Amino acid sequence: MSASPPSREQQIRSFLHEHDLQAWIAWRPDELLMLSAYFPFWGASLLIYFADAEPVLFVPQIEPRDHIPAGLRVQEYPWGDLKCSDPYSALVAAVGDELVKAKVEGEHVGMNPSASRISLPIQAAEQIPIPEGFAGQLSALTAKPSAQRQAAFADLYQKKTLEEIEAIRLANRVANVGLEVFSENLQPGRTEAEVAAAVESAIYRQIGSDDIFHSRGWAMVQSGPNSADAGRFNRSTGRRLENGDLVLIELATCVNGYWSDLTRTAAVGFPKAEVDQLLAVVRGAQQAAVDGVRPGVSAAEIDALARDKIAAHGLSSFFTHHTGHHVGFRYHDPGFLILPGESAKLEPGMVITIEPGVYVPERGAGARIEDNVLVTESGHETLSRIEGSRHL
Amino acid sequence: MSASPPSREQQIRSFLHEHDLQAWIAWRPDELLMLSAYFPFWGASLLIYFADAEPVLFVPQIEPRDHIPAGLRVQEYPWGDLKCSDPYSALVAAVGDELVKAKVEGEHVGMNPSASRISLPIQAAEQIPIPEGFAGQLSALTAKPSAQRQAAFADLYQKKTLEEIEAIRLANRVANVGLEVFSENLQPGRTEAEVAAAVESAIYRQIGSDDIFHSRGWAMVQSGPNSADAGRFNRSTGRRLENGDLVLIELATCVNGYWSDLTRTAAVGFPKAEVDQLLAVVRGAQQAAVDGVRPGVSAAEIDALARDKIAAHGLSSFFTHHTGHHVGFRYHDPGFLILPGESAKLEPGMVITIEPGVYVPERGAGARIEDNVLVTESGHETLSRIEGSRHL
Repeated sequence: MSASPPSREQQIRSFLHEHDLQAWIAWRPDELLMLSAYFPFWGASLLIYFADAEPVLFVPQIEPRDHIPAGLRVQEYPWGDLKCSDPYSALVAAVGDELVKAKVEGEHVGMNPSASRISLPIQAAEQIPIPEGFAGQLSALTAKPSAQRQAAFADLYQKKTLEEIEAIRLANRVANVGLEVFSENLQPGRTEAEVAAAVESAIYRQIGSDDIFHSRGWAMVQSGPNSADAGRFNRSTGRRLENGDLVLIELATCVNGYWSDLTRTAAVGFPKAEVDQLLAVVRGAQQAAVDGVRPGVSAAEIDALARDKIAAHGLSSFFTHHTGHHVGFRYHDPGFLILPGESAKLEPGMVITIEPGVYVPERGAGARIEDNVLVTESGHETLSRIEGSRHL
Repeated sequence: MSASPPSREQQIRSFLHEHDLQAWIAWRPDELLMLSAYFPFWGASLLIYFADAEPVLFVPQIEPRDHIPAGLRVQEYPWGDLKCSDPYSALVAAVGDELVKAKVEGEHVGMNPSASRISLPIQAAEQIPIPEGFAGQLSALTAKPSAQRQAAFADLYQKKTLEEIEAIRLANRVANVGLEVFSENLQPGRTEAEVAAAVESAIYRQIGSDDIFHSRGWAMVQSGPNSADAGRFNRSTGRRLENGDLVLIELATCVNGYWSDLTRTAAVGFPKAEVDQLLAVVRGAQQAAVDGVRPGVSAAEIDALARDKIAAHGLSSFFTHHTGHHVGFRYHDPGFLILPGESAKLEPGMVITIEPGVYVPERGAGARIEDNVLVTESGHETLSRIEGSRHL
């Protein structure tokens, strides 16, 4: 019998206790999601997570309310050009009041001041994070940043709860709808951008089904010689697919705040043998690494399972990146990478990508296959392979 | 005869001279675009703009090169998990070397350290801005921030050059392709998300035509009672369009880094008279404000042209936001708003939105119409009304 995994609340309270904190202040969209299962619309919300009391969520007056989890205590602050020229000062004051009321002193309040590598809020066309000056204002209410504490906080992203795993599973199910559209569009004459656009469209259309209030894909399709660039960057161009191409899709999908990160590579018609071989090698390497995922195995061991297979075909110099990373609260969650030399070990509840690839300009082709794999008590479950769907 | 508008280079050099600066360091995507017409893929590039020498662009080794403007001096810095664990320190060192070589002292180097409200780079699924710690490292190489200098730098966004106007015109032409698809999809039974997805797809598909290497739309569709929320937020839900609905689309479009920001409201079938009236009032108010755009008119005067028309119908309490803002380098450029009490005056080269709206929950309807309007020497030109296209 395996023990029940710790709930999110248990994990957070244990972190706060270990670091002698009575509260944590969060405003990054991925932090709000992880701490409270709430994903912001504007990216201008703020949560105080107390060690010994219910959390309080501050939202701008214009924030939609219907996606805020029931039971979360909500306070609104003023927002709007005609109403308030400096909403953040009002917010800082309200946060300060709340801490005083709770009798929590600044030296026992933690915060992540960084705005880099954050999940995009639902209104994604422009980042409206709480501005830098605001973090400065808040710092008067919080403890001095500590790298060790920040790292421990980032570790909270790693072990997903049962509810979070279901949410990531849903993101992968939606992503799979996009991948089906990718398969249907693998036809000579279509441009990369046309294929990618069709995939994103299929994902956006899922809003309204299955309690999905937010669904957005970022698809990037690279075909023929362009696929050889996919180890450096992913994008879609106006190039038209041709018979004999490998076509690679990198697909980021965010559903209700939770992310899936997938890659598929498929052939159009019949590629040359030297091109076909790349795809076969990557398939074998990816499968080997996925098969090896289980608790207690190190990241370096998983990486080696893929990297050795690729090396055995003399292609190791074309596998230029990591084998994987954590995923779920962001397109790339914080935490250790699946990389040579990384001794961190897999644990149940972790969700990682497995994504080896080879990119060979002189063959005019590149291939990568990426899945999202949950570490279970007894081994693993591939969240991104959906029963009944066409495998690529 | 009107004088030629100042070139971007003249505007920047004049700013640097006035503020006793010998260089400006930029890394925000919209700043890179404004200073050099280069729009980053990863959002991890950095430009040094010298007062008396050619600019230098630092790009991560993985950055695509084909969209970097010809003639820009490029230096690459290492990037990649297997190559470099701390690319930013390498970059800071290279920036420092470049400043020493140019004999420029830190007190004469300006920078905008803020990461808030930035344009999304091409790889938009995750913000990878240069991290906050990096701004701290760079601050040793730059002058102490000055609010007055930051404000003057932000003013550089306001007057667009002829080339920039053409780029914003192209973004509006692409957006118009999306609006045509919106019109075609205004049919009972479609969900808001389906309509929005079709619009975004049409915009993404433009990549490859007309020198378009990047084209992405963010469409948000609100129908029937949901349109009454559009003064607070824009999003798409699974609600199906019905006869008698007003349907509002908020459409952000980024083409090669330059932005268009449009709104249209249209009726499905035949709405009730009290709903139809809202749309008619907004149409009249929007047209009045657009008609008033010319050099020398204040923002408050433009705002009043729209606001008074709405007030004349007793609807002023339902027009809850500004009448407009600058647009082009971002979805919302910095600079004055078109708002009551704003005395700033329009000048040739400015591109502003005109977007009055009314949102009346008790009528189950809201309407907004938004165009992008260029201030010319003699009056204005509406960049977002494309000849031959269906007007909404």
